[in-house]
Amino acid sequence: MEDDIKDKLAQFRALVSKIRGYYEAVGLLNWDLRTGAPRKGAEFRSETIGMLDTEMFKLQISDEMANWLDYFSRDEIVKQLDELDRKIVQECKKEFELNKLIPANKFQEYSVLTAHAQTLWEEAKEESDFIGFEPYLSKIVALKKEFIGYWGVKGTPYDTLIDMYEPDMTVEKLDEIFNQLRKRLVPLVEAIQASPNQPEHNFLHQIFAKEQQEKFGLFILEQMGYDFEAGRQDESVHPFATGLNIGDVRITTNYIESDVTNALFSSLHEGGHALYEQNIDEKFAGTPLAEGTSMGIHESQSRLWENMIGRSRAFWERYYVDLQKQYPSQLKDVELEDFYRAINRVQNSLIRIDADELTYNLHIIIRYEIEKMLFNEDLSVKDLPEVWNAKYNEYLGITPPNDGQGVLQDVHWSGGDFGYFASYSLGNMYAAQFLNTMHKELPQFNEWIAEGNLLPIKEWLTAKIYQYGKSLTPAQIIVQVTGEELNPNYLADYLEDKYKEIYKL
Amino acid sequence: MEDDIKDKLAQFRALVSKIRGYYEAVGLLNWDLRTGAPRKGAEFRSETIGMLDTEMFKLQISDEMANWLDYFSRDEIVKQLDELDRKIVQECKKEFELNKLIPANKFQEYSVLTAHAQTLWEEAKEESDFIGFEPYLSKIVALKKEFIGYWGVKGTPYDTLIDMYEPDMTVEKLDEIFNQLRKRLVPLVEAIQASPNQPEHNFLHQIFAKEQQEKFGLFILEQMGYDFEAGRQDESVHPFATGLNIGDVRITTNYIESDVTNALFSSLHEGGHALYEQNIDEKFAGTPLAEGTSMGIHESQSRLWENMIGRSRAFWERYYVDLQKQYPSQLKDVELEDFYRAINRVQNSLIRIDADELTYNLHIIIRYEIEKMLFNEDLSVKDLPEVWNAKYNEYLGITPPNDGQGVLQDVHWSGGDFGYFASYSLGNMYAAQFLNTMHKELPQFNEWIAEGNLLPIKEWLTAKIYQYGKSLTPAQIIVQVTGEELNPNYLADYLEDKYKEIYKL
Repeated sequence: MEDDIKDKLAQFRALVSKIRGYYEAVGLLNWDLRTGAPRKGAEFRSETIGMLDTEMFKLQISDEMANWLDYFSRDEIVKQLDELDRKIVQECKKEFELNKLIPANKFQEYSVLTAHAQTLWEEAKEESDFIGFEPYLSKIVALKKEFIGYWGVKGTPYDTLIDMYEPDMTVEKLDEIFNQLRKRLVPLVEAIQASPNQPEHNFLHQIFAKEQQEKFGLFILEQMGYDFEAGRQDESVHPFATGLNIGDVRITTNYIESDVTNALFSSLHEGGHALYEQNIDEKFAGTPLAEGTSMGIHESQSRLWENMIGRSRAFWERYYVDLQKQYPSQLKDVELEDFYRAINRVQNSLIRIDADELTYNLHIIIRYEIEKMLFNEDLSVKDLPEVWNAKYNEYLGITPPNDGQGVLQDVHWSGGDFGYFASYSLGNMYAAQFLNTMHKELPQFNEWIAEGNLLPIKEWLTAKIYQYGKSLTPAQIIVQVTGEELNPNYLADYLEDKYKEIYKL
Repeated sequence: MEDDIKDKLAQFRALVSKIRGYYEAVGLLNWDLRTGAPRKGAEFRSETIGMLDTEMFKLQISDEMANWLDYFSRDEIVKQLDELDRKIVQECKKEFELNKLIPANKFQEYSVLTAHAQTLWEEAKEESDFIGFEPYLSKIVALKKEFIGYWGVKGTPYDTLIDMYEPDMTVEKLDEIFNQLRKRLVPLVEAIQASPNQPEHNFLHQIFAKEQQEKFGLFILEQMGYDFEAGRQDESVHPFATGLNIGDVRITTNYIESDVTNALFSSLHEGGHALYEQNIDEKFAGTPLAEGTSMGIHESQSRLWENMIGRSRAFWERYYVDLQKQYPSQLKDVELEDFYRAINRVQNSLIRIDADELTYNLHIIIRYEIEKMLFNEDLSVKDLPEVWNAKYNEYLGITPPNDGQGVLQDVHWSGGDFGYFASYSLGNMYAAQFLNTMHKELPQFNEWIAEGNLLPIKEWLTAKIYQYGKSLTPAQIIVQVTGEELNPNYLADYLEDKYKEIYKL
């Protein structure tokens, strides 16, 4: 490479790295706000987050960035770049093209608003106060619609949002995928409800002191290979994972003493996200490729670890004895098989994050349909609780007693994350498809789990998925790993096999 | 005010507020690095801190800032500004004038280096590894000397550093003040050492479980009026206080189970700093006036709460019974009077932060003299351990067994804070002078403390000192509150009275 190009590349990489610095700062300021920042500092903090987020945004669409992207896209220059630099240019270009039309002051307004709204949401949820929260949510939706105008409508306005979390995914494809899935899941749910073999489950809801829950959760995180020298676990109302840099990927959980597994499955879920980001190849550090490739692939890792591993019989063959040791008086008379069936009990319920693996997808379909109505059919934010409650009644046969357990239950909308929810079900589908391949390539998969030998699984996932970060697209990943495109039947097969056995259908 | 000026003022204030946003972010990134950030993320983190610190620095000396300062200094404009805005302009101008000559890349180098060095210092101290740490410290000193050139030498090079922490303080004045102080303290220390009435103290060094130490410390912080809705306490190797904004002023402490009061006095000390910043008038929020006016006045508050209140007989008349309840088996046979004498035991010792109120000032004088040698007399960093050990031997009659307990004991130099140490003794002097006034204006002072009625003291300090933030100079504060300039005799009087009684001299 010519010295002049080398020099320019160093300058470009410095700009890219500076953007990642802002990304880290915003990530930490948000993490802190959710995990223990004092209340009285929250308002100024929201302003600070908005300000830094906007500075990052300005750099991404700056003239300097435009010039570098122009320069590094010239044919005679591109061919002198190595693959890594080419991909960095590509990714920066994508963000540039996407955001270049958004006025910085609009972005700042949005950014301050969502930082603030996430704090307000915690209180609104606590107090089931949708009316108090509605003006903020309406404003967020209005700004999001304005942004869709700047971003450009792909197919429908909602497609634009979907594409942000799952590149190349569309409403048309999702309608089709969710239809296929629903066709196979609804009869399964009905059969389960009619089954006389309902698992006992009351023993899960005794009092389980937080201290032991924490100890056990940390032990499991260690077992799955979460690196505590490159992360930490804290508490927050809504569990989350956040990657500040490859050496600092944090997770949170939420302890409920009347529920022995809630915090644990949150740890496994967020731990799955974190394993992904902790194991991205070091060469991507300080670049926009040091992230998961899409939220669907990201959620495939959280859902794989939480459900397909964490709620498997093999997992508890190894670890149930340890949990019993933490709570001898509560669990000594509960057999492994009964515990396994209890944590996999299927029940139509109100809260997405507490839902079983099977009906979980119905919670997602409800949100997907409501978001589609918000952005493609002009549903008013004011009418959300009514529509929400009606859909829960229709799909799950139950009506939320209040908005805290209804439309206010999720943090996503307060942060402006419309279009995200589909990722969870996509994640389930990707995960089932990965799992199918793992069983073929790692015939000892179940044995290893039953022995508590989880690290080879982490290593396989690192080799196949994690290391690549954002340098491969979700479509490339799924084809490269499993040999075919996303196919919802793997999830349906997996769920049928698992639940027919549990419910003796 | 004309609309045009109003509009320009709003733009100027937005710039000022943006700078405070960076200040908050850098503060949080540092806080996090010291309180629990994972090791593997520290290197990238240091880069991020350096980057943001530099962005803040660039704004402070930006053309935009220069233009506003120029505009708001014009006679016809100044007279239309209210006092607050005039002071903000003044403060921004001061920072501008100071830093305008420093090249941004030098500043960034310094900033990344000191963020990184603080992490390395923790390990170096732990392992008593001065040789490994020396290159970093040498680089910091070299950069600091270079900066003094940019800042401009006031009197001597070391004066320039002193002035940063204590405006208008000079080496000449400090030499004089320290001389006066030493003349009165040395005979006192000698008399104490010769006294047959040495306090028992072994009972302070049993095993005191951390959990109760924490509980008791939090209780005391609450008693003194520390607002936990505008702050929090965490753990760090070296305790510190950091004000992110007026609604978020955090402190840390460090638990040592073989010492019942170490963490407590750290909490009182950092709590004193925090009370100052939590109680600055809201009108200064988001401006550079929302800080303590000098480190000397800042330390007067930490030392006042830690020693003059926290190590007073009245304080323990109220709170000793609570401490005994936390540790009944360890303290039930220890009388209040013996406890009081033990925590005020004077002993020549190695570690500054563990030193008694009296010899503490000798630790400061040692550092002051060494720093003066570093910057005014070309002492080489390599020779620091030798000089350090010789001075400890000369002034305190003991030699550190290793550098971890010697020259590496303090965090300050790794952060580039040369010139800071004098603030601690200045703080002691200011505090004693304030205390003298308090006794006159609040005749029930001791009674209140003995009743655990600490809030009126906080309120008096708020009314007289805290509320003003940086809007008055240290010299204005001391004269306004006490009616005279800084006078070291108040500290000497206070110490003589206190220790003659304890040691029955």
